[in-house]
Amino acid sequence: MTADLLWPGDSRAGVLFTDEAIVAAMVRVETAWLGALHAHGLAPAAVDLRGLVGPADLPGLAEAAEGGGNPVIPLVSLLRERLRPRDSSAAEAVHAGLTSQDVLDTAIVLCLRDVAERVGAELSTQIDALSGLADRHRGTRMAGRTLTQHAIPITFGLKAATWLQAVLDARDTLHAVVLPAQIGGAAGSLAAPTALAGSPERALDLVTVTAAELGLPARPPWHTARAPLTRVADALVTCTDAWGRIANDVLVATRPEVGELTEPAGEDRGGSSAMPQKQNPVLAVLVRRAALAAPPLAATMHLAAAEAVDERPDGSWHVEWATLRTLARRTVVAGSQTAELLTGLRVDAERMAGTLAAARPGIDAERDKVGDEGPYLGATDRLIDAALDRAREKPC
Amino acid sequence: MTADLLWPGDSRAGVLFTDEAIVAAMVRVETAWLGALHAHGLAPAAVDLRGLVGPADLPGLAEAAEGGGNPVIPLVSLLRERLRPRDSSAAEAVHAGLTSQDVLDTAIVLCLRDVAERVGAELSTQIDALSGLADRHRGTRMAGRTLTQHAIPITFGLKAATWLQAVLDARDTLHAVVLPAQIGGAAGSLAAPTALAGSPERALDLVTVTAAELGLPARPPWHTARAPLTRVADALVTCTDAWGRIANDVLVATRPEVGELTEPAGEDRGGSSAMPQKQNPVLAVLVRRAALAAPPLAATMHLAAAEAVDERPDGSWHVEWATLRTLARRTVVAGSQTAELLTGLRVDAERMAGTLAAARPGIDAERDKVGDEGPYLGATDRLIDAALDRAREKPC
Amino acid sequence: MTADLLWPGDSRAGVLFTDEAIVAAMVRVETAWLGALHAHGLAPAAVDLRGLVGPADLPGLAEAAEGGGNPVIPLVSLLRERLRPRDSSAAEAVHAGLTSQDVLDTAIVLCLRDVAERVGAELSTQIDALSGLADRHRGTRMAGRTLTQHAIPITFGLKAATWLQAVLDARDTLHAVVLPAQIGGAAGSLAAPTALAGSPERALDLVTVTAAELGLPARPPWHTARAPLTRVADALVTCTDAWGRIANDVLVATRPEVGELTEPAGEDRGGSSAMPQKQNPVLAVLVRRAALAAPPLAATMHLAAAEAVDERPDGSWHVEWATLRTLARRTVVAGSQTAELLTGLRVDAERMAGTLAAARPGIDAERDKVGDEGPYLGATDRLIDAALDRAREKPC
Amino acid sequence: MTADLLWPGDSRAGVLFTDEAIVAAMVRVETAWLGALHAHGLAPAAVDLRGLVGPADLPGLAEAAEGGGNPVIPLVSLLRERLRPRDSSAAEAVHAGLTSQDVLDTAIVLCLRDVAERVGAELSTQIDALSGLADRHRGTRMAGRTLTQHAIPITFGLKAATWLQAVLDARDTLHAVVLPAQIGGAAGSLAAPTALAGSPERALDLVTVTAAELGLPARPPWHTARAPLTRVADALVTCTDAWGRIANDVLVATRPEVGELTEPAGEDRGGSSAMPQKQNPVLAVLVRRAALAAPPLAATMHLAAAEAVDERPDGSWHVEWATLRTLARRTVVAGSQTAELLTGLRVDAERMAGTLAAARPGIDAERDKVGDEGPYLGATDRLIDAALDRAREKPC
Repeated sequence: MTADLLWPGDSRAGVLFTDEAIVAAMVRVETAWLGALHAHGLAPAAVDLRGLVGPADLPGLAEAAEGGGNPVIPLVSLLRERLRPRDSSAAEAVHAGLTSQDVLDTAIVLCLRDVAERVGAELSTQIDALSGLADRHRGTRMAGRTLTQHAIPITFGLKAATWLQAVLDARDTLHAVVLPAQIGGAAGSLAAPTALAGSPERALDLVTVTAAELGLPARPPWHTARAPLTRVADALVTCTDAWGRIANDVLVATRPEVGELTEPAGEDRGGSSAMPQKQNPVLAVLVRRAALAAPPLAATMHLAAAEAVDERPDGSWHVEWATLRTLARRTVVAGSQTAELLTGLRVDAERMAGTLAAARPGIDAERDKVGDEGPYLGATDRLIDAALDRAREKPC
Repeated sequence: MTADLLWPGDSRAGVLFTDEAIVAAMVRVETAWLGALHAHGLAPAAVDLRGLVGPADLPGLAEAAEGGGNPVIPLVSLLRERLRPRDSSAAEAVHAGLTSQDVLDTAIVLCLRDVAERVGAELSTQIDALSGLADRHRGTRMAGRTLTQHAIPITFGLKAATWLQAVLDARDTLHAVVLPAQIGGAAGSLAAPTALAGSPERALDLVTVTAAELGLPARPPWHTARAPLTRVADALVTCTDAWGRIANDVLVATRPEVGELTEPAGEDRGGSSAMPQKQNPVLAVLVRRAALAAPPLAATMHLAAAEAVDERPDGSWHVEWATLRTLARRTVVAGSQTAELLTGLRVDAERMAGTLAAARPGIDAERDKVGDEGPYLGATDRLIDAALDRAREKPC
Repeated sequence: MTADLLWPGDSRAGVLFTDEAIVAAMVRVETAWLGALHAHGLAPAAVDLRGLVGPADLPGLAEAAEGGGNPVIPLVSLLRERLRPRDSSAAEAVHAGLTSQDVLDTAIVLCLRDVAERVGAELSTQIDALSGLADRHRGTRMAGRTLTQHAIPITFGLKAATWLQAVLDARDTLHAVVLPAQIGGAAGSLAAPTALAGSPERALDLVTVTAAELGLPARPPWHTARAPLTRVADALVTCTDAWGRIANDVLVATRPEVGELTEPAGEDRGGSSAMPQKQNPVLAVLVRRAALAAPPLAATMHLAAAEAVDERPDGSWHVEWATLRTLARRTVVAGSQTAELLTGLRVDAERMAGTLAAARPGIDAERDKVGDEGPYLGATDRLIDAALDRAREKPC
Repeated sequence: MTADLLWPGDSRAGVLFTDEAIVAAMVRVETAWLGALHAHGLAPAAVDLRGLVGPADLPGLAEAAEGGGNPVIPLVSLLRERLRPRDSSAAEAVHAGLTSQDVLDTAIVLCLRDVAERVGAELSTQIDALSGLADRHRGTRMAGRTLTQHAIPITFGLKAATWLQAVLDARDTLHAVVLPAQIGGAAGSLAAPTALAGSPERALDLVTVTAAELGLPARPPWHTARAPLTRVADALVTCTDAWGRIANDVLVATRPEVGELTEPAGEDRGGSSAMPQKQNPVLAVLVRRAALAAPPLAATMHLAAAEAVDERPDGSWHVEWATLRTLARRTVVAGSQTAELLTGLRVDAERMAGTLAAARPGIDAERDKVGDEGPYLGATDRLIDAALDRAREKPC
C-alpha cells in the first residue's frame, strides 16, 4: 500500500496495519489455529499458510470481501484452494470451527499490538526528550500565559514537565491496554470447536494454544463486548491529546511575534510553494491535524460498541475495522512526528527572557500583591522533579 | 489505489477521489491556470501538463508531501522539472501566482464534483426504485411499528414513500451544493496574480478563465471560510442518513421472525464462512455501517472550519483532505449499495398480511377507539402521491 | 429555568427553548389542533389551553415524562384533567388523532423558529459590524499569516471581508432552512385524523389549518425522515464555525506579543480571580468554546436521523430533543457574544503597521520575486467590495 | 434544578452535578483550602463557608459567570463579601493563592466522585442481576443470531454472560479512574501558595492537606494535562456502551415477532398517548438513547484535552464543564434504568424454544456439518462460569 497522499507523513507508519499487514495477520491466525488443531489431532498437518497468499491477491480479496461483508470469507476460500493440491485434507481443516469474526478480530489485535509497540517506542523517545528539556530548562524563565494573556512568570522547564505529565498519562493508558485473542466460533459458544475437539475443555485448550502461539492473552469471546477495542482507541486518543497539546504550544511559540521555540529544521521541511523565505512549523501543524481528527474516530469505536446486538452485529462490527486502522496509523505518524519535534526542539531562552521583561510590571502583579520578592517560581523545581521521577518509573 | 480491504464494497467507488484522481485534478488545475496565464500573455505556452506525472510518481509524491505539509509543493517541483527540458520558461510559469491551497482546494472540488455526480446518479436510481415500490405497494398492508411495537396498520407503499421523502431531502440538499474554484494566492488577496497580470481586473479575469476552463463557478477566496466544504460534507451525510434509515428497516424486516423483506440475492452475496445456509443482508449491513461512520466525519469537517485561523490555518486545513475523501468514497459506496438494494428488494406481501392478522385485535385498538370501520389507512394514498409528485419534480 | 452555571453567557439565550418554552409550545400545538378540530366540527369548542399549565407543573411533568418516554403523555393528561371540569367534551377532544411525536416535533420546530429568528438578528448585527470593519480598514495594512508565519502583507479590511464571507455563508445556510409542522398521527398515515374528519381531504385540511395557525409550512409526516432537523443543526453549526474562526483570529491578535485587536471592554468583563491586571478576551474564549462543542452535537442529530427505524424509532428520536436544545441555545449565546465582540472590536492599526515593518524584508519576498513595487495588495479592494455587495443582498 | 424535561428519566440523577452541587463543591474546596491556610498559620480562622451561599444565589452567579468566563470569580466575591462583616481578615484569606481553575476543576472532581460512586452502585446491581440471569438461564435454549439471521443455538444464559462481561469491563474501567485534586495557582507553579507559605515544601503541604480534607489524591497541577478528565469520560462511555448493547438486544427481543424478553412493567410505564394497548420498552429505549449520545460527548472532552495551550487554554477548558456534566448525569440515569431493566427482566423460555424449533433445520446446519449430535452448546457452561467468577472478583 502506497502511503496516503492526503495524510502527509503517512509513510512513517510503514506497513503497520496496511491491507498487506492485515492479510498477513489473518493468515497467521489461521496458521496458529490449524497448528492447534493438528496438535490436538484434529488436522492432518500443521501447515504454515503464509506463503499461500501475497500482495497480488489484495485486489481480488478486496473485491470479494463485499460478498459476505468481510475479507475472511474469500481469504479462507483462497487458502483452501491453494492448499488443496498440496494437502486436500489439511485444506479442509483450515478455519474449521472458526467464524470470520474470530479471524478478523484477532488479526486486528495483532496489528494493534504492533502499533502499540511502535507508539510505545515513540513515547519513550518523547519522554527522554521531554525529561531533558524539563531538566535543562528548569531555570529558563518565560512568561506564563493563561487565556492568551501574560499571567505570571514560569520556566520553560515547568512547561516541559507539564507536557511530560500528559505524555506519561498517555504512556500509562496505553500500557494498561490488554489485547486479547478472540476465538468463539459462530455465536461465541465454541460450539463447533467443542464438537471438533470432543469436549469443552479441549475446545478451550485449542483457544489457549492458539492464543499462546500468537503471543496473545485469551479471554472469553468478546464478539459483542467490545471494550478491548474501545480501550485501545481511547488510549490512542489519549496519546494524540497529549501531542496536540504540545503542538499547540509550539505553534504559538513559533509565531514570529513570540519566537520562543523553533522546530527542528529537516531537509526539505517547512517550505512554501510561493514564499521560499518561510519556514513553517510543519511537524507541529501535522501533529495538531491528527489531534483534531482522532477524537471522533474513537467516538465511532464507542458507537460501534454501543450498537452491538445479537451474537454478531449488523454493521457496527464492520465499521470498526477501517476506523481503527485510520486511528492507529495516524497515531503512529503523529507519535513519530512529535518525537522528532521534541528531540530537535530549539529553545530561545533569550527571547523568552525578553518577552518576560517586556511583560513587566503587569506580569508581576500577583507577586506584588502577595508581597513576594521573586523569582516567584513557587514549587517549580519540585514539580519538575516529580515529573522526572515519574518518567523514570515503570508505566502503571 | 487498490480498494480498501477493510471497507468491503470500496471498489464500487472506483477511481473517484483516489490519490491518482487527486493528482490528476491538481495537474488539471495547474494546466488551466497555465492556460489562463498564456491567454493573458503571461506564460510562453499553454502546455497540457497531464502527461508529465503518472501513477509511478505517487509513492514519491506521498513521501515528499510531508516536507511542506502538502502534496502540491513536490508536485509543482516535479512538473517544472519535467517540463523544463521541453520548455524552460513555461516550466517557470507553472503555478506562478498560486499558492498550494489554491491548487489542492480546487483539485478537491473537482474530485467532489465527480463524487456528487455519481451520488446524484445513485440517488436517481433509488428514487426510481422507491417510486415504483411506493406505487406498487400502496395497498400492501402491513403492521406499522413504533418503539418496536405494533401500532396501527399501514401499507408498505407508505413506508416506501417515507423512505423516498428522506431520499428526496438528500437529493435536494446535494443539489443545493455549490462547488467553487479556489484561487487567491498566498494570502487570499490575489497579490501575486495581480502583480503578474498588471491589474486587479486582469487578475480576477485569470481566476474567471481558470474556473471556467475547469467548469467551476468562481467565488472570492475561501481559504479560511470553509462553508463550501462543510456543505458538501453535510449533504453527503444527509444521504447516508437517508440510506441508513432504509437499511435499518430492511434489517428488521429481514430478521427471520419478521421476514417481510429480502435483499436481492447477488452472486456470492451474503454467505457465511461457517454456516453455508445463512443468507445475510449484506447490503443493508454495509449501508448501515456507512451511516454510523459518516456523522463524525462531517463533524470533523465542521471542526476544521471552526478552527481556521490566520490566512491559512495550522492544521485544520490539513485535516480536511483525507476526511473528505473518506466520507466521499464511502458515500458513493453506500449509495451504490442502496440503489442495488432498493432495485432488487423483494417484498413478501403475504408475510406482511400474516403479521398484521396476528397483531389483531391489539393493532386495531386506536381504530376501534375512534370508531372507524377500516381499512384505517388514512391519507395514505394522498401521501404516497405527494412523494411521487415530488420525485418527479426537479430538485429544489 | 435558571441559566446554566457551567455555560457562562447562557443567560443571553433567555427563555428560548427552555422547558417552559417547550411546554408552552406544546400547549400551542394542542390549542391549534383543537381549534382546527373545532373549525371542522370535530370538537365542541376551540379552547385556548395556554392558561392550564404553568411553571409549577414542570417538575411533575419532567418526572412523569419517563413513564411513556416523552413529556407529551403527561402533558395531555394534565390538560384534559384541568379542562374537564370546565368542558369535559372539549377535554376529550384535546390531542384527538395526534401522536406524541406530532406534538413534540412541532413544538420543537416552534422553539427552533424563535431560535432561528434570534440567530438571524445576531447575524445581521455581525454583518453590519463586519461590513463597517471591512470598509473602514480596507487600507489598514497588516501581516498576512499562513501556518502561523508571516506570508505577505494584507489589510485588516480584507481579513474582515473574509470573516464576513463566512458569516454570509452562515446566514444563507440558516435562511435556507425550512421548519415544517409535523402532523401524521400514530404511524404517519393520518389514520385517526382521517377517521375523525371523515375523509383524507378533510384530514389533510386539519393539518393545513393547524400549521397555518402556527405559522408553519406543512409537509408530509417526517417522523422518520429527519432532514428538517439535521438541516437546522447543520445551519447552526455553520454559524458557530464562522464565529469560531473569527474568535481564533481575535485570540491570536489579542496575545500581548501581537496586540493588534482588543475585545470591547465590558463592565466586569475579562477579570481574573488572581491577577487583577489581566484583561482576558472572554468573549472570544467563550465563542471558541461553543465552536468546539457544536460539531459533535450536529453529528448526534445526523446519527439520530440515520438510526431511525420503523414508524417511530426506539431511542434515536428521543436523543434529538436535548441535543438540539443544547446546540440551539449555545448558538444563540455565541451569536450574541460574537455580535458584541465585533461591534466593539478595537483595531490597533499602528501595531499592525509595526508588525508589518518588523516582518520585512522576509514578508516582501514573494513581491520581490514577482518584481512588484508594492503595495502588493492585489485585488483587495475588489474582494472587499464583493463581500460588501453580498452583505447588502438578500440571503440566498 | 428541575429535572430536564427533554431527557426523560433525568430525575434519577437527583442533585448529582447540578448547579447546586457544583456550587456546594466549590465552597467545599474553598473551605478546605482556607482550613489548610489556617493550619499553616496563613489565615486567621478556619471558617466553614458552606452557609454563605445558597440556591437563591444561583441565578446571580450564573449571570455573573460570563464576566470572567467562569463561575469561580463571582462566587469568591460573594463569599468574601458575606464573610467580611463577620471576619474581614478571614474574608481576605478566602481563595488566597488559588486560581479559578483550581477551584472549578477540583469541584468538578468532587461531583464526578459522587457520580462514580452512584454509577458503581448501579453497576453492582446490574452485575448481581446479570449473574442471576446467566446462572438461571444457562440451559435456556434460544436461537443465536448473527447479522440478524439465525446462526446456531445458544442459551440465554450465555447471552447474559456476554452482557455481563461487557458490564464487568465497564466496572473495571471505572474502577481504574483516579480523580485527583487540582491545586496549582495561577500558572501551575504554586507560586502564590509558595509565597504565602514561605517555601515550596509548605506550599506542597497546603495542597496535600487540602486534598486530604476533600478525600482526594493529590497530583501535580494538570491544568493543561487533561487525562484525568478524559479517563472519566472514557469510563462513563464504556458504561453506556455496555448498557446500549444490552438495550439493543432487549429491543429486538421485545418486538412482538420475537417476543423473547419483556421489560419489567412499571406503574405508568410504557404507555402510548394514542394507543393504550401498547406496552413500549421504554427503559431500553431511553438507555439506547443515552448510548447514542455519549460517544460524541467523550470526544468533546478529548478534543478539549488536545486543544489545551499555554498554562490555561482559551476555550477548551471552558467547554469541558457542561459537557462532562451532561455525560455524567446521563450515565447515572442510564445506569439506573439498566439496573431496573435487568433486575425485572422477564424471560420467555417457551418462546425462545419455539423460535429455535422453527429455525430448524437451518440453524443446525453447522452442527450437522461438523457431525455433532447436539445439544451443540459448546463451552457454554464454562464461559458462563468464567463470567460469574469474574463478577465475584474485585475490579481490576
